[in-house]
Amino acid sequence: MGKNKHLKVAFQGEIGAYSEIAVYKHFTSDVQTIPCKSFSDVFKSVEAGNVDYGVVPIENSIEGSVNQVYDLFLEYDLKVCGEIILKIEHCLLANRNADLNSIKVVYSHPQALAQCSNFLERLGYEIIPTYDTAGGAKIVKERGTNDVAAIASERAAEIYGMKILARDISNTPDNCTRFLVISTEDSPPTGNDKTSIIFSLKHVPGSLYKALEEFALREINLTKIESRPTKRRPWEYNFYLDFEGHRNDPKCMEALKGLEKKATFIKILGSYPKAKQNGS
Amino acid sequence: MGKNKHLKVAFQGEIGAYSEIAVYKHFTSDVQTIPCKSFSDVFKSVEAGNVDYGVVPIENSIEGSVNQVYDLFLEYDLKVCGEIILKIEHCLLANRNADLNSIKVVYSHPQALAQCSNFLERLGYEIIPTYDTAGGAKIVKERGTNDVAAIASERAAEIYGMKILARDISNTPDNCTRFLVISTEDSPPTGNDKTSIIFSLKHVPGSLYKALEEFALREINLTKIESRPTKRRPWEYNFYLDFEGHRNDPKCMEALKGLEKKATFIKILGSYPKAKQNGS
Repeated sequence: MGKNKHLKVAFQGEIGAYSEIAVYKHFTSDVQTIPCKSFSDVFKSVEAGNVDYGVVPIENSIEGSVNQVYDLFLEYDLKVCGEIILKIEHCLLANRNADLNSIKVVYSHPQALAQCSNFLERLGYEIIPTYDTAGGAKIVKERGTNDVAAIASERAAEIYGMKILARDISNTPDNCTRFLVISTEDSPPTGNDKTSIIFSLKHVPGSLYKALEEFALREINLTKIESRPTKRRPWEYNFYLDFEGHRNDPKCMEALKGLEKKATFIKILGSYPKAKQNGS
Repeated sequence: MGKNKHLKVAFQGEIGAYSEIAVYKHFTSDVQTIPCKSFSDVFKSVEAGNVDYGVVPIENSIEGSVNQVYDLFLEYDLKVCGEIILKIEHCLLANRNADLNSIKVVYSHPQALAQCSNFLERLGYEIIPTYDTAGGAKIVKERGTNDVAAIASERAAEIYGMKILARDISNTPDNCTRFLVISTEDSPPTGNDKTSIIFSLKHVPGSLYKALEEFALREINLTKIESRPTKRRPWEYNFYLDFEGHRNDPKCMEALKGLEKKATFIKILGSYPKAKQNGS
């Protein structure tokens, strides 16, 4: 399973999806990317050993819901072994003879359409939602006409042999997505790591405060916190927490041990090297 | 602007959308519902005084992203004056002469399709995403054929005069969405209230712990917490916090005053009566 040639990495979406670009950004070796229909298919493939790794979006994602991925971490016994931060640069792709004036209809994932709404409204295009951005590009390619376009990545344009009519068409230029790399094991300490956990607390005043005490006392920096209703009982909450450090660092071990005593449930998703923050 | 007849309430989506059902659940008087194309159109209508209230999904939503709505609260100076919890019951709608065997293609919002994936896979239907659930029903009605169906609410079936082929087809039966009611002012204290705020902190270890101290010391119950990257600077976080109590309750006032001293930014979205928790 090492970083050898022909490492197999599963992702959700069509070839050319942003998740696939994230795979190529993270794995420098000669990887084979395996497209999956759903996030749950990515988890299944990793668990069954059909692939070495999976890559799934977790925050500010363009391809689907983060919540779905968190739910899958509760369902499957897999670990986070890496993170990837990718700058999302939406392009308008079309067939060879099209130009901005010939386009009438634009296909893409609803979130990509929403992120490019200013551009689309200015040009007065009709919009049609698709399952993923690369899937929209595929539809436009198959149509072959000059009145249709898709919002997708530059890589999708290369793969489907399409023309880029416009670049960087997002309303907000700083559009990054954070991906997690999943495997059957997490990563060894590097000195610059992060750890992701899920835990539940009794729903009484001060319970979260007392739980976070374990991290504050040891000066452990939190990088993300989120509460979400559990599926077990309505209005019972799980907390999704990321913090700096490796679960085997002495002070992180102590904090986790302390939290275990206060939590009604805890699952350590894994420790992994921090991604570079620039996203490029 | 009181709860008089013909109160105007804006929501995102087509007539028959779950957001519109939430409006009818909350406002007992004779309301006029105003469909809007986007969440930002809902905020604009309320700000311009074209409607008395707006209703937007905020948590576990079926119609779109919660994040988008939070961003709009930062952009507009509007208040939360109520919350609504609605149980989402997906139905399979079709034209008069259709049955489960005649259907080949099902239209709906991607999240609704995902939530009913077990049902759809069992019956082997092809799926096509639409912008909202009621919009899918509209397409099926316009087609008029027996091979198409939509996943939407029972109310959408009534509005478009369609047949319900199957009820409660979600993978998870406990599917609730939380909506917020927005207006130019929040609500007076009722003794059973909640308050929503957004704040930022310096990104140093223990800063969140010290901020939550203000609530823990006063035994104020937190009902939701979430960190999200700000749009101002990458990897700077805003915290979205809901807590029990009214911003005019003495202990809440003290907590907010204490938090103000520790936060680099704070915006009180408003206080409002808690919704009933059953969702029905």
